[in-house]
Amino acid sequence: MGRAPANPPEDEQPPTLRRHGPTDRRVIQPVRRFKPGDAVVRVTRPKYAGFQRRGAGRIEASLTLEEPRSPWGRLWRVLVGTPIHSELEIEERLTKKKALAVFSSDALSSVAYAPQETLVVLLAAGTAALVWSLPISIAVVLLLAIVVFSYRQTIYAYPSGGGSYIVAHDNLGERPGLVASAVDQLVSAVPTLLPLRVELGVAAVALVTLANLRGIRESGSIFAAPTYLFLLAMLSTIGLGLFRLATGTLYIPPPAEIPSPVEPFTIFLLLRAFAVGSAVMTGTEAISNGIPAFKPPESRNASQTLVGMACILAAMFLGLSVLITGAGIVPHANETVISLLAHGVFGDSALYYVVQASTVLILVLAANTAYADFPRLASLLARDEYLPKQLAFRGERLAFSNGILILGVLSALLIAVFGGSTGALLPLYAVAVFAAFTLSQAGMVVHWRKVRGSGWRLKAVINGIGAAATGLVSLIAASTNFMNRELPIVAGLPIGWGSWLVLLIVPAFIWLFRSIKAHYVDAEKDTALVLTSSDGVPERPLRNVVVVPIARLNRPAVQALRYAQALSSDVTAVHVATDPKRAADIEAAWPTWGRGVPLTIVESPYRSLTRPLLQYLAELRRNEAAETVTVVLPEYVPDTWWQHLLHGQSAQFLKLSLLFTPGFVVTSVPVHPVDDDVEQALA
Amino acid sequence: MGRAPANPPEDEQPPTLRRHGPTDRRVIQPVRRFKPGDAVVRVTRPKYAGFQRRGAGRIEASLTLEEPRSPWGRLWRVLVGTPIHSELEIEERLTKKKALAVFSSDALSSVAYAPQETLVVLLAAGTAALVWSLPISIAVVLLLAIVVFSYRQTIYAYPSGGGSYIVAHDNLGERPGLVASAVDQLVSAVPTLLPLRVELGVAAVALVTLANLRGIRESGSIFAAPTYLFLLAMLSTIGLGLFRLATGTLYIPPPAEIPSPVEPFTIFLLLRAFAVGSAVMTGTEAISNGIPAFKPPESRNASQTLVGMACILAAMFLGLSVLITGAGIVPHANETVISLLAHGVFGDSALYYVVQASTVLILVLAANTAYADFPRLASLLARDEYLPKQLAFRGERLAFSNGILILGVLSALLIAVFGGSTGALLPLYAVAVFAAFTLSQAGMVVHWRKVRGSGWRLKAVINGIGAAATGLVSLIAASTNFMNRELPIVAGLPIGWGSWLVLLIVPAFIWLFRSIKAHYVDAEKDTALVLTSSDGVPERPLRNVVVVPIARLNRPAVQALRYAQALSSDVTAVHVATDPKRAADIEAAWPTWGRGVPLTIVESPYRSLTRPLLQYLAELRRNEAAETVTVVLPEYVPDTWWQHLLHGQSAQFLKLSLLFTPGFVVTSVPVHPVDDDVEQALA
Repeated sequence: MGRAPANPPEDEQPPTLRRHGPTDRRVIQPVRRFKPGDAVVRVTRPKYAGFQRRGAGRIEASLTLEEPRSPWGRLWRVLVGTPIHSELEIEERLTKKKALAVFSSDALSSVAYAPQETLVVLLAAGTAALVWSLPISIAVVLLLAIVVFSYRQTIYAYPSGGGSYIVAHDNLGERPGLVASAVDQLVSAVPTLLPLRVELGVAAVALVTLANLRGIRESGSIFAAPTYLFLLAMLSTIGLGLFRLATGTLYIPPPAEIPSPVEPFTIFLLLRAFAVGSAVMTGTEAISNGIPAFKPPESRNASQTLVGMACILAAMFLGLSVLITGAGIVPHANETVISLLAHGVFGDSALYYVVQASTVLILVLAANTAYADFPRLASLLARDEYLPKQLAFRGERLAFSNGILILGVLSALLIAVFGGSTGALLPLYAVAVFAAFTLSQAGMVVHWRKVRGSGWRLKAVINGIGAAATGLVSLIAASTNFMNRELPIVAGLPIGWGSWLVLLIVPAFIWLFRSIKAHYVDAEKDTALVLTSSDGVPERPLRNVVVVPIARLNRPAVQALRYAQALSSDVTAVHVATDPKRAADIEAAWPTWGRGVPLTIVESPYRSLTRPLLQYLAELRRNEAAETVTVVLPEYVPDTWWQHLLHGQSAQFLKLSLLFTPGFVVTSVPVHPVDDDVEQALA
Repeated sequence: MGRAPANPPEDEQPPTLRRHGPTDRRVIQPVRRFKPGDAVVRVTRPKYAGFQRRGAGRIEASLTLEEPRSPWGRLWRVLVGTPIHSELEIEERLTKKKALAVFSSDALSSVAYAPQETLVVLLAAGTAALVWSLPISIAVVLLLAIVVFSYRQTIYAYPSGGGSYIVAHDNLGERPGLVASAVDQLVSAVPTLLPLRVELGVAAVALVTLANLRGIRESGSIFAAPTYLFLLAMLSTIGLGLFRLATGTLYIPPPAEIPSPVEPFTIFLLLRAFAVGSAVMTGTEAISNGIPAFKPPESRNASQTLVGMACILAAMFLGLSVLITGAGIVPHANETVISLLAHGVFGDSALYYVVQASTVLILVLAANTAYADFPRLASLLARDEYLPKQLAFRGERLAFSNGILILGVLSALLIAVFGGSTGALLPLYAVAVFAAFTLSQAGMVVHWRKVRGSGWRLKAVINGIGAAATGLVSLIAASTNFMNRELPIVAGLPIGWGSWLVLLIVPAFIWLFRSIKAHYVDAEKDTALVLTSSDGVPERPLRNVVVVPIARLNRPAVQALRYAQALSSDVTAVHVATDPKRAADIEAAWPTWGRGVPLTIVESPYRSLTRPLLQYLAELRRNEAAETVTVVLPEYVPDTWWQHLLHGQSAQFLKLSLLFTPGFVVTSVPVHPVDDDVEQALA
């Protein structure tokens, strides 16, 4: 550059040698003395309190470090529990029994309303149409069988989690994968809305969120009792009901007033009733996403749980339909079908109330399945950089705690917005569920064609049937509920809720996923390490110049100077002089306190601080041919926040300005009001 | 400490020598070549663009650095003007003519309403009481004469600003000084409230704030025209009015309906009317605070301005009172006295409208006097550490811009809260004005007793009379308006606005002043430099250990390592491992990219980042016997704010935690998305 600085860089140093890390250094302790002159010492390693040594250059943090230190911390500890060691992850897995409780609560809860909703749809064409509820149930159970059969293959083929996102992404490409993920996430948020009032819904969400933060195993334990209670209650009701039906002792009174038909009986009506009834199939997708949550052998346990769940659902669904048709149940305006049935079977005995209470409980807990699905799916997307990486973080109980918290907040918001009304989001729900199935099964067909192996053709055919069936149901669900003008989005407008919203929501999700991914890819490219041809050649050390801006010459300033001198032998100080008198004072005291550091006075006759300083630093960097300029700022840290206001904010402005200017590094040297003890300890 | 680290501190260095600062270094430039082998060079100093050299180690920032760089900056420049060089301060001083405009607008505006308010008070005792308006005016003018005579002495005795705060603080002690300051600041905020509606009031405040940000001289120029127009209009009205009164051609119609008396005529009523009339005296205090704003000779100019203002006020006040009494004016409900008078004198001619317009204008500009007083007083208090130091800052136009902005905001808030209603705060106003006078004049009496000098007894007597008279008026104002139950503070409660509020507000101000002072004193003690006995002995250099926390091994991390190596030869790196796989990856790549720095893996089996890291750093500091641990954090600076959310916030938590822990210094090494050009420039 045609210039030779008077002070050549002095911080050039020989390439550092391989050295011991601080935990591996030797500590020499005097042990005892037999005679004067003896020096018996023990050579040990330094003690790092709160850590265990795990080999050279490796220590492990103990649980003691995680002890809560504030009242809020202690409350959190009570609510969420003691942190769990990462290596105990396997202990946190689900047994089949608990897995059934976790993954089936959503599907089971649909038994409590899906038959009723089917009847209500049919009733629009008159009571004669109600006999169709049995054929519809048979169709639903058939579909369930196809889906389960198809998904069993997926579970074995993708043992580390074969949700529709993974399978579609792997076999059909990025966009189908993201579509599958978007619809699946939609499904996770919706079921919590189903048949609850706002306060009850929000309370349930809070409860379920908290339980899930305690870890999946514990949430399984918590939710097992109510789930199995509901199962028992329903199977008893159905069993005893069928017995009474057979013996002719079942009587269920029709409603006082039977509404007259409002629409003709069409195939379209039948299909709508079928779409409503098929809400029973959600848990399937959740199980295939959650295979890693099962105890080993994961795939076998997951597959058995899936089949078990399907059998129970099929039994309950068919049983209920036989009872409904056999007893000629007509839905009432103010009593649910389950309640009517339980009344008919148990009369007004205590058992009736057990059935009712367990039904309410299962509806409250229906949200839990989403917590087994959404956070895990979000963590997969975060791993693939389609969502913020924080979502892949496992909290103190090994649960995906960020995902759980976000699902909790989203669900509570949706409940608050929709007032817990069942109808508005159901169309989205059915379309989303079956779209995810279709993509997953279609992906499996491609998978078998790629992988081949023994009997691949049969497997491909099975998944193909699954894809075709669920694809058909997707279309049925989408077309029968394309737009419901009776549920306007904005009161007065002719635009109603309906499955058409999927066409808005899914592209929005995909745009979001891809934007996030694009940023991560850019950032990775920006920060990637590339081996260049100069590799191996010892690299030129970084030319760094250290500057200490001095606002007033006090203890923080002198400490900053002393600190700066520990960083570099090429330290200069600068004072931006807005007040000539203060500048003169600093200059006069400099020989005493300046520690031999050259001081430059930058007169600022227009009384601004930041701009002359920034310009000076930029010019200094250029003139000194420095790669970086380190700005060492003395920072007095007051005791309380309001006292910050009494000290100038120029340091903060400076920091912010320099953060966005390449080539500058800002170091604050905090000086605390009372650190006499610390200083004495080190003196 | 009974231990010897394997790597002894290597940053010990010889005491640095006295060196040239960066602006004084020599730059050697090749100039020309006559023959091969010649090396003719020129030795110059480095060029610092945007600065002028002002001697050894001293440069001056040019105006070019202050050029606005954003649209907002350009707008601000247009509104406020080009910055003014500190050395041109003397050019920014006020001539007597402009000073009269600046300091008298408040007092002059009182002419527009004080006579009317006096009449309204008197009218309560019936129209017969109105004749007392002339004696009251004479009393007010007498009081004005005493105050002015007394203040003239203060102005000469305290040529650098002899407001009541300075004089009382200097002679009566801290508390009386702070009381004087508190009441003076109260006065500054109140007058803007007087007779304006909310929108007009806020607009006027904004206008006057902006004008004052352009500097006091320019605000004087801006406000001179309307002030002198009002003066001319009033003097013409009064002069012609007196002529017409003498010639018997002045007729002012009484109101259609004369209200009947509501209270008896008492000395108390008279005193209340007097207290209302004495609002005329505000400018006096403002001038004595603002002596340094006058061109030299400051004291003489200030004193002459004060006397000139007093004469004009006296003439107008007495003239108005003669006219009111002579023409028997009775105040109307919907026409001001000034308007009645102007109608009577000028009929419905254009001149009438000139009088009316100039009156509205002077009322809008009345706030301006406070801007000449409050920011300067606040700067004195800030200098003495009773208010935040930022208030002593002079902005680009040499005005106390922070004080001006705060006054603007406070005034606008008060107008918004009180809805621009005249009555509520007037009692506070009168008490505060006269309390400040009293404290100032009492202080002067003590001053003369201390200083003595020729004729000191006479001077003390004059100030004593001033103190006694203004003290009496303070008492009158306080007692006659102690509480007005017709203006309840909260509707329905029997507590009304009144001078008693001073007893709350002033102690609150003093508490605030003293708290601020106490903090500054503490901070100063904490940060004071004390010469110790070890002084002169070369101080032990600071033992600093540099640690680089590595989250992932990428370019920012390697840059941070390279930077850290420029700071110290004792650099170690640490990775808090929440994911064993990532830790293994980093360990595997370390020999290639780790630059020879020892890496410690801190396994965090409970997956928390901050706590294990903080504990490790604390233990490292203890084991290495380091005075400071410098934590060098790689920081990737994304392009947009939302991208920050996609990167972990652990670095921010860490910074905040370490800021409050003594012995740690945090350095962020910013890595920017695109700094290829910069890197190439330095390669």
